[in-house]
Amino acid sequence: MKLLTYRIKHSGEDYRVGVLLDDMIYSVEGLKKYISDPLCKESLTGHPADFYRKLAHALPALEAALCSANPLDGISKENVEYGPVVTAPSKIICVGVNYMDHVKEMGHDVPKLPVLFSKFSNALIGHLDDIMGKEKSHQLDYEVELACVIGKTCMEVKESEALDYILGYTIANDISARDLQKRTSQWLQGKTLDRSTPIGPYIVTSDEILDPGQLKIRSFVNGECRQDSSTSQLIFNIPTLIAFISNLMTLEPGDIILTGTPHGVGFAKKPPQLLHSGDEVICEISGIGKLVNKVK
Amino acid sequence: MKLLTYRIKHSGEDYRVGVLLDDMIYSVEGLKKYISDPLCKESLTGHPADFYRKLAHALPALEAALCSANPLDGISKENVEYGPVVTAPSKIICVGVNYMDHVKEMGHDVPKLPVLFSKFSNALIGHLDDIMGKEKSHQLDYEVELACVIGKTCMEVKESEALDYILGYTIANDISARDLQKRTSQWLQGKTLDRSTPIGPYIVTSDEILDPGQLKIRSFVNGECRQDSSTSQLIFNIPTLIAFISNLMTLEPGDIILTGTPHGVGFAKKPPQLLHSGDEVICEISGIGKLVNKVK
Repeated sequence: MKLLTYRIKHSGEDYRVGVLLDDMIYSVEGLKKYISDPLCKESLTGHPADFYRKLAHALPALEAALCSANPLDGISKENVEYGPVVTAPSKIICVGVNYMDHVKEMGHDVPKLPVLFSKFSNALIGHLDDIMGKEKSHQLDYEVELACVIGKTCMEVKESEALDYILGYTIANDISARDLQKRTSQWLQGKTLDRSTPIGPYIVTSDEILDPGQLKIRSFVNGECRQDSSTSQLIFNIPTLIAFISNLMTLEPGDIILTGTPHGVGFAKKPPQLLHSGDEVICEISGIGKLVNKVK
Repeated sequence: MKLLTYRIKHSGEDYRVGVLLDDMIYSVEGLKKYISDPLCKESLTGHPADFYRKLAHALPALEAALCSANPLDGISKENVEYGPVVTAPSKIICVGVNYMDHVKEMGHDVPKLPVLFSKFSNALIGHLDDIMGKEKSHQLDYEVELACVIGKTCMEVKESEALDYILGYTIANDISARDLQKRTSQWLQGKTLDRSTPIGPYIVTSDEILDPGQLKIRSFVNGECRQDSSTSQLIFNIPTLIAFISNLMTLEPGDIILTGTPHGVGFAKKPPQLLHSGDEVICEISGIGKLVNKVK
């Protein structure tokens, strides 16, 4: 299933949660009429802030409802604006220097343990939204990343069980203001500018991703391929990351982990190829889709 | 006014929001009966997750209600458990190496700009709660900090107006797992262990703090004074921090900024004086109060 947040184009309304099927979007609130189990019904709320809290056990019912849905219940994806797939996660955890080829191009040491930093939800935008930040930074850069969304509360899990806690996968563009990121020892200030981080277009639930460690991952700027790798090149793979992070802090439904970016970022190119106003960035991961945004 | 979150001792119920007056705690829900303005009433919710969202303009009405309250409406502070003053802030922003004497003891360069990092709300605990983390870290350390809580949405504010956006001030103990903090370049993983960061006991609203840049700030371990400084020693003072941070990201009501710790942390002492199970840590700031916690 493909879960997303959206609103009718130009409506200015709050985002709602929906499911994408055959280019049509069905609101979760609308699908509830096809669900009879009152517990599942109660677990499903169409409000993005609460949606992920009790979602995991209601997923099968939601999928069944989608099968019953009438195409007239849906709206065409052409008629919506996409929101960030999770609008207000309690944590956005980013993993730095997690592809061997990116470690080399950035001149970092190979990490012996995952390097963790964060961003806040003020940074998140949806598919097709404009990337902001050019007025704050002279060195805005792209970073395509596989992101996973936590589905169940997760504390001190083993690697062998880690994937069970993932609701699904999505694409993030961890836009980085290199000048702000590197002017102090801690990267946070270059990573969380308002409306700078696209995430989406949707969450592909984990039952549809047979092996998150074998996905092709690429980015393009104005049609030119800039990053081209595979999640098989991750230094710390997703089960390792979930086990490592959940041993430090309890993960909650809706929490997002950005797993790192492969080589080919603009900052490391000679000469640097950073982002300019009007540039279109496409981030693509096989089995998930394409995340498309322009720099404002 | 002194705002806090609390619950009846041993009740296991959710935290509610209250106001402390003369050692008695009055619930905000209970005080609403003394408020007639429907807009103010609507703005005041006793649920900690929403409380700060619309609080700022309803503060005078809340204060007036407190004057009308009957002592029989309150409960003694001896009968409650304290929660973190904000249970689920959208951002917890920490400022590193922000006292000159602490910069020297840690062997850092004097920062030319504020160094920002973060923690997540899983880390927060209240006054008198046990500090967790000993089972994850061999180098748990204390850090008393003045924390400010944002009261109004705040974007690109000037230094001269920055204090207007602060709801109030509280005390944080930015417990740091030095081994985890320093094993990678980014500090996050040593700063956000579950239930490791006491914050409270309450928020003193900013009308009661004439100058946040002239507060005595101290910490004690088992009665021994370990840190003893003044917020006048901050390298970047609060107006500078609010202006700097709000130029990078929009601050929202309930967001917390931890402004840094003065010299005297356990890690920098020779030999190091880190925390052990059973140690009692008291963090004290003049005009605010005392935050007391034991290490589990």
